[in-house]
Amino acid sequence: MRLLFIGFGTVGQGLAELLIEKKEQLAADHGFNWTVVGICDPLKGSLYDPQGLDLKAALTAAAAGESLSNWSSACDWDAEKMIAEADADVMLEATYTDIKTGQPATGYVRAAIERGMSVTTTNKGPLALHARELVELADSKGVHFLYEGTVMSGTPLLNLVRETLTGCEVREMKGILNGTTNYILSEMEGGLSYADALDQAQKLGYAEAVPDADVLGWDALAKVTILANVVFGGALSPSDSPCEGITEITADDIEKAKANDQRYKLIGRVWRDGDAVRASVGPQLVEMSHPLAGVMGATNAMTVTTDALGDVTVVGPGAGRVETGYSMLVDLLHIGRMR
Amino acid sequence: MRLLFIGFGTVGQGLAELLIEKKEQLAADHGFNWTVVGICDPLKGSLYDPQGLDLKAALTAAAAGESLSNWSSACDWDAEKMIAEADADVMLEATYTDIKTGQPATGYVRAAIERGMSVTTTNKGPLALHARELVELADSKGVHFLYEGTVMSGTPLLNLVRETLTGCEVREMKGILNGTTNYILSEMEGGLSYADALDQAQKLGYAEAVPDADVLGWDALAKVTILANVVFGGALSPSDSPCEGITEITADDIEKAKANDQRYKLIGRVWRDGDAVRASVGPQLVEMSHPLAGVMGATNAMTVTTDALGDVTVVGPGAGRVETGYSMLVDLLHIGRMR
Repeated sequence: MRLLFIGFGTVGQGLAELLIEKKEQLAADHGFNWTVVGICDPLKGSLYDPQGLDLKAALTAAAAGESLSNWSSACDWDAEKMIAEADADVMLEATYTDIKTGQPATGYVRAAIERGMSVTTTNKGPLALHARELVELADSKGVHFLYEGTVMSGTPLLNLVRETLTGCEVREMKGILNGTTNYILSEMEGGLSYADALDQAQKLGYAEAVPDADVLGWDALAKVTILANVVFGGALSPSDSPCEGITEITADDIEKAKANDQRYKLIGRVWRDGDAVRASVGPQLVEMSHPLAGVMGATNAMTVTTDALGDVTVVGPGAGRVETGYSMLVDLLHIGRMR
Repeated sequence: MRLLFIGFGTVGQGLAELLIEKKEQLAADHGFNWTVVGICDPLKGSLYDPQGLDLKAALTAAAAGESLSNWSSACDWDAEKMIAEADADVMLEATYTDIKTGQPATGYVRAAIERGMSVTTTNKGPLALHARELVELADSKGVHFLYEGTVMSGTPLLNLVRETLTGCEVREMKGILNGTTNYILSEMEGGLSYADALDQAQKLGYAEAVPDADVLGWDALAKVTILANVVFGGALSPSDSPCEGITEITADDIEKAKANDQRYKLIGRVWRDGDAVRASVGPQLVEMSHPLAGVMGATNAMTVTTDALGDVTVVGPGAGRVETGYSMLVDLLHIGRMR
């Protein structure tokens, strides 16, 4: 399988590490053999060699913050040119998420599919805003478009529903889709104020300097929109659903909840309402006996309510270099199996 | 797909209900079309018709406790004869589990595979005692042998590992594999004595009149042995692993644990120890912050520790008529996809 990296930051490097580490095992266990023909990153530069690049050397250089522009395979192609010219089977799209416009990632995904490449992405933008169009385009071109890492990183959620709950009717999904806010709420229960807990999350790298996307619920909103559209077949935009963050929750609220054997969680929820699909994000009191209540720290979790099994809950990492890189590896293995 | 039911008790009927309810959806969404050609049950009798039986009528009769022996398609074939004579693609084995001998289920599975049928079973006996032999036999015959329901009923665990954690290295599995004991421990935390909690579990149908298989850990032991052999590639018998139940845990122990922010759970565990695979069952103190601690009542849960993702936990039903029936449906869909 001839691979093209568009974006070679944290997630791309996490995937590269796994591809290198597991090369022999992937060939032996899955008949999966890969060659990287192109890497294109706005900061690090572009490499292209149809005979295959040295991924290990590229990973070492990128991890050390070195430019790739003096390599013999370096070229001046930007992402658009790379996608138009490269001879690749699968594009690995892991550029920065812009949840307002979905760009430039949506353009990259569209162009790659148009050229007949399969695509895996971890970028929430294209899926939250253009899921249906891109899925239909991929179907019409006979290629595969997978995006396991857009929700809960490598923790199986989309695959859980598609592969292991196949034949079930999914009636509702609700869970903790943002690790940063779950970490802050957990620390507040330990006695910190909201401001101190946020400060600590920023120091640990869980929260950005401008934490709005997490604490106001926008990140979780993008994820429930993806679930509404790809699992429930809806056609929602993020702005269609109510969204409230955790900034109004006080230490006092948390104490009161505890006294009632309850706990505040920032809950993303998707459900059917007659023929419509609805989604919401907001703080909710969860009974201590519910599996979501015990999910503490930067972990994510989702309860999937089905007809045949009732509730099935999956708990796992929602971020991380190798964890998100793994989501692209599992997508590649599924693409390999489907081809 | 031509189906043969061996055993038409609770689980077989749960599957039959799903097959009937979802017939159109399975055809439309999965291209899955089925005909039941044979049903063989030691209490209800045997039916065989190569043109296809009326499953709905058979389900209604069986659910009402009626014999099938006066039907026009009735025959006097026992299970061995049915397996030897029936023209079927897949045998659905859901007879009573004998965890000491694995019989008669192991004989049925072996005979069906020898005849070139694929098999799905929910029976722990054949898997805990003869997993490797049966898997190798199925491979050599070019048929499929699936058994999702043997651990955590229809909650995806074997499929979670195989389909959605593919490419990960599984390092350890530990979890709550017996709902009865988890229910008793949960009720004891609510203030009941062990004897009263057991009594309540028996009244609710969670525990048998002779509750040894649950409370002494044998049921969980069968399940960890299955995981050790099919996920970790081990060659363990149940008797190879230490096994302790919950009968020695007192209300006092539970109170003390609570004071330390811990909770007793009956934990089944499988792990690698150098080249060896080890398994154990016994009560363990779990930190309240661990996802397993919050799993209360008759629910099951398993934490899978992997190289790429760290811990992923799945929580869901561990028993139930439709829930276990669903495990056979998902096996059938996977068999359909692989054929």
